[in-house]
Amino acid sequence: MSTEYTESLNKLIEEFGDLPGIGPKSAERLAFHILKADPDKALALAKAISDVKTNIKRCRTCFNLAEADLCGICADPKRDKSTICVVEQPKDVTSLEKTGACKWVYHVLGGHIAPLDGIEPTDLTIDKLVERVRAGGIEEVIMATNPNLEGDGTILYICSLLRPFKTKITRLARGLPAGSTIEYASGKILTDAIIGRRELD
Amino acid sequence: MSTEYTESLNKLIEEFGDLPGIGPKSAERLAFHILKADPDKALALAKAISDVKTNIKRCRTCFNLAEADLCGICADPKRDKSTICVVEQPKDVTSLEKTGACKWVYHVLGGHIAPLDGIEPTDLTIDKLVERVRAGGIEEVIMATNPNLEGDGTILYICSLLRPFKTKITRLARGLPAGSTIEYASGKILTDAIIGRRELD
Repeated sequence: MSTEYTESLNKLIEEFGDLPGIGPKSAERLAFHILKADPDKALALAKAISDVKTNIKRCRTCFNLAEADLCGICADPKRDKSTICVVEQPKDVTSLEKTGACKWVYHVLGGHIAPLDGIEPTDLTIDKLVERVRAGGIEEVIMATNPNLEGDGTILYICSLLRPFKTKITRLARGLPAGSTIEYASGKILTDAIIGRRELD
Repeated sequence: MSTEYTESLNKLIEEFGDLPGIGPKSAERLAFHILKADPDKALALAKAISDVKTNIKRCRTCFNLAEADLCGICADPKRDKSTICVVEQPKDVTSLEKTGACKWVYHVLGGHIAPLDGIEPTDLTIDKLVERVRAGGIEEVIMATNPNLEGDGTILYICSLLRPFKTKITRLARGLPAGSTIEYASGKILTDAIIGRRELD
């Protein structure tokens, strides 16, 4: 399909087609958009792509995305450095930050333990988390991995390493998602909701 | 939404989001894909974008896409230069070429006449087509604009300019699309099919 245009255009269609969720038709449409677009606008996209590859690294402390040695959150003096919220991915940091309820700092694991997929604890930043806790001054570690088998397994493993430090370890609450209906909630969700039920004031 | 990540990543999400058919969620997904991708692969996309803007121009003769002065078709000595097929867009050339039935050369108008949208005959390459016919050696001009009001109007206008040259002017056949059913064909299609009916040998 893409052997029909000029060399540069074929190449661009091919590159767009390699992106996730972009089929051959979309790739062609995007390439023609670039072809017709204002050169400044098109080159801005090219520059944005190479900038991301050049500028973005991992925060030295928490492994969140950063453009300096420290990420914006670790560099913020107003943050409570005694509480570490442990998440799997940088995207999870963003989701939690959007609530506006977080004053803590983070630790980004880089995924979850999944031996069957070849992801061992050493592939994650777990040792760096243990180091942070060992260094002292940490009052609470909040586990915010995904509420599934892998996330829970990762929590168990991390807990076994952190237990000697006597730091408080918590986990995000589980139960009925706000806005849902009990009728359609799964057994697992209802079980979590029943086990975690709270007394009303 | 995109104010949540680092500066470079926000910028890339914004640029992806400006592409047609890419919503905020897709833009974020693509940007994270670039972030995780092999640097060579990501930079290949950036280069492909800037190459398209730098390398692709219009064929001097037919205004098809080209990376040299002439497009591949005009530069091909095996092509029959006495027959010009007039199309609206470079994409139409590709569609026709895919049939493998074309030995002719093309003339790409760059659109159709649409005064209500502000597209006047002077915005298209119609004068260059007239020049090619005036230069002589053209036996047939095949009109292959889209079979709709604007395409037909454009044909009428071009015919009025080409008539003095006594070159044969033809139009692509209209009728029932192969593989369709009469039951679901529109009145316009059926009318075309009836008017254009051919005697069987």
